[in-house]
Amino acid sequence: MLTAGSGERKVELMKTRFIALLTDFGERDFFAASLKAVIAGINPQARTIDITHEVPSFDIRTAGFILFSCYAYFPKGTVFLAVVDPGVAGRRAILLAETAGYFFIAPNNGLLTLVLEKEKIVGLRRLSESRFWLTSAKTTFEGRDKMAPVAAWLTHGVSPGEFGPEVKGFKRVKIERPRRSGDKIAGEILYQDKFGNLMTNIPFSLFPPAGGAKGRPQASLVLGGKRIGRFVSSYSEVQDTRPFFLVNSQGLVEIAVREGSAAARLRAKPGDPVLIRFDS
Amino acid sequence: MLTAGSGERKVELMKTRFIALLTDFGERDFFAASLKAVIAGINPQARTIDITHEVPSFDIRTAGFILFSCYAYFPKGTVFLAVVDPGVAGRRAILLAETAGYFFIAPNNGLLTLVLEKEKIVGLRRLSESRFWLTSAKTTFEGRDKMAPVAAWLTHGVSPGEFGPEVKGFKRVKIERPRRSGDKIAGEILYQDKFGNLMTNIPFSLFPPAGGAKGRPQASLVLGGKRIGRFVSSYSEVQDTRPFFLVNSQGLVEIAVREGSAAARLRAKPGDPVLIRFDS
Amino acid sequence: MLTAGSGERKVELMKTRFIALLTDFGERDFFAASLKAVIAGINPQARTIDITHEVPSFDIRTAGFILFSCYAYFPKGTVFLAVVDPGVAGRRAILLAETAGYFFIAPNNGLLTLVLEKEKIVGLRRLSESRFWLTSAKTTFEGRDKMAPVAAWLTHGVSPGEFGPEVKGFKRVKIERPRRSGDKIAGEILYQDKFGNLMTNIPFSLFPPAGGAKGRPQASLVLGGKRIGRFVSSYSEVQDTRPFFLVNSQGLVEIAVREGSAAARLRAKPGDPVLIRFDS
Repeated sequence: MLTAGSGERKVELMKTRFIALLTDFGERDFFAASLKAVIAGINPQARTIDITHEVPSFDIRTAGFILFSCYAYFPKGTVFLAVVDPGVAGRRAILLAETAGYFFIAPNNGLLTLVLEKEKIVGLRRLSESRFWLTSAKTTFEGRDKMAPVAAWLTHGVSPGEFGPEVKGFKRVKIERPRRSGDKIAGEILYQDKFGNLMTNIPFSLFPPAGGAKGRPQASLVLGGKRIGRFVSSYSEVQDTRPFFLVNSQGLVEIAVREGSAAARLRAKPGDPVLIRFDS
Repeated sequence: MLTAGSGERKVELMKTRFIALLTDFGERDFFAASLKAVIAGINPQARTIDITHEVPSFDIRTAGFILFSCYAYFPKGTVFLAVVDPGVAGRRAILLAETAGYFFIAPNNGLLTLVLEKEKIVGLRRLSESRFWLTSAKTTFEGRDKMAPVAAWLTHGVSPGEFGPEVKGFKRVKIERPRRSGDKIAGEILYQDKFGNLMTNIPFSLFPPAGGAKGRPQASLVLGGKRIGRFVSSYSEVQDTRPFFLVNSQGLVEIAVREGSAAARLRAKPGDPVLIRFDS
Repeated sequence: MLTAGSGERKVELMKTRFIALLTDFGERDFFAASLKAVIAGINPQARTIDITHEVPSFDIRTAGFILFSCYAYFPKGTVFLAVVDPGVAGRRAILLAETAGYFFIAPNNGLLTLVLEKEKIVGLRRLSESRFWLTSAKTTFEGRDKMAPVAAWLTHGVSPGEFGPEVKGFKRVKIERPRRSGDKIAGEILYQDKFGNLMTNIPFSLFPPAGGAKGRPQASLVLGGKRIGRFVSSYSEVQDTRPFFLVNSQGLVEIAVREGSAAARLRAKPGDPVLIRFDS
């Protein structure tokens, strides 16, 4: 549709028209809708996509992991608007991060730790220019009054530099790293999904090279005192209802039960330690 | 994008392309999707925005308050389609209200009381012209078969007058007004949000002028026999987990607990009386 | 907007730009958003509509009934992407069904039974052409990596034949049919909605012709040992809170309680037998 010469700006507009929303607002109130209303008013061409509004209240870590788990599937230029904000409208700044591929707007509270460690950061700013906001007065709803307007103006092609001055760094939450020593990797449960699958912080890339023809080492896993001996490559290899583990679509070790909840079966939850042992 | 001479009608189309949905349908069935399907079929250019579908079943007051709390953030010309309808398809008419800024379609059961008291009403009609509906037969799903089609045709630029005759008034639900006498205001809890924050019906505009430099009077609040002495201007002023109150982003007094539920802590709920006392 | 000569292809694009999503993913994780992200990346003009993501985990029958209950209200050409997939990524194929009006993409596990029995099937294929997928490697998230991309490419006008070879048939789940004998119809509860209304598998078309002037026969219903004598034509005929039944907007017998839950009142659930008896 765009021919040579149709202009840089039009391409830019096309690239940045999606705004992805991630909040702990829930869906029963008017909070998430207010963000969309404000965006529609500023740029009727912008298209919002809900990541989720069901982040547990104030849970920055879970929000960060959800964002990290899906952001790279969005079109380049997508604006991510993430509002999980304990101590709303406090002294923390609101960040606008521009990376090689995306824009991220969020309170500077650690929520962006995982994505900004992975993305190549082009610019990091704090929102200060109130002429883009709904109000310059104090507000208890900064998502609606400051952040959503900035997201919408970004999709209009306003340059990130217009919204505020550069800042040096951003707040990070401590991320537990898995540790490998010899034939063991020690990690922890990061996330429990709706089905009760348990995602760990252990990437397949940390596994030792396999000796066999299958391209995968033999391994077993210990969680909550229970040993899980089955390391499979697909849910469909499993026909019974005992727990197993596999490498999930994010490249992380995940513990599951066929058509059931591993979390309930193993009485496990985010934060619990996980140990993987490789058989030589 | 619109140049001089491009025509009134095109402008009108731009203005009315958003349809905001508010129902008690929940999100697990096919009810909300059916509204969107019908709209997409009649006007593929129309854009639907979900306010919420999680209104408690048949709760007209809550629906009305949610609508009131966000409608003004939507672009001018938005069509609001609100379906909370105890005694579905009864003798009540379906209202189409045109105001200075918006269109509202809802059963005539009081749901629109708050917004129509605030908006300047331009026209008030009941839907009667079945040629715009999916069916002229009796139906148990008027949201899908009558209301969604009318919303979609409105975004096509069909004039409100086409859908049915004018009516004189609309059904109102009784709204409790806060009462100020001397140094006290008596009101009640209006709404509990997902976080457990408690919104009252007491607007800041009812407060006496402040003597001090902060532009705010000294005040304390009583709810359920408990006195709350902290009246702050922002969530971030509070570091502990005892209840406080502030003026929220709607201009109403709200009772909150930092990163916790004021409703749970105070065992309070919508309808409970609230008393504010000002210190002279 | 489309003038003569603007081309077949453009019309086709218009016809197939909607993608309706139906999953058991829930809304708290990043799964549903990942489908929309992938679609937005492949075809930014495509428009997704959520049917629901709250199908009970792995419940193919409920998913099939929800799809059946709303698909015909969507614009012709809509692509339905249904992901409820016990034993994810197993040996079952992924189906792409083209019918006279729509496209359906789903695991070949019986989910499409009801819609494909009703629709006129034009082509039935299994997805095999990995050049349309995000990855040709094994994946535990086929919805995102295979199905969503195919849905998006369909809205780009790619012909169904490009995605894989024709297959002979599709897996069916056994659907209980109501049986009429003499003055009785025996059926069962199919579905319980959010309000607690109970939809049966008994269509009004199976009823005997009425003798009276009202166009409806006299009937009573037995469910769980309780007899329900009221057969009404609209919710609004009922003023008290005792159970009644009517023909719902899908043409099926439904048992309801005014502003209450028939399921809770009658302690009934999907699968329970229902008997209707006609009075001569």
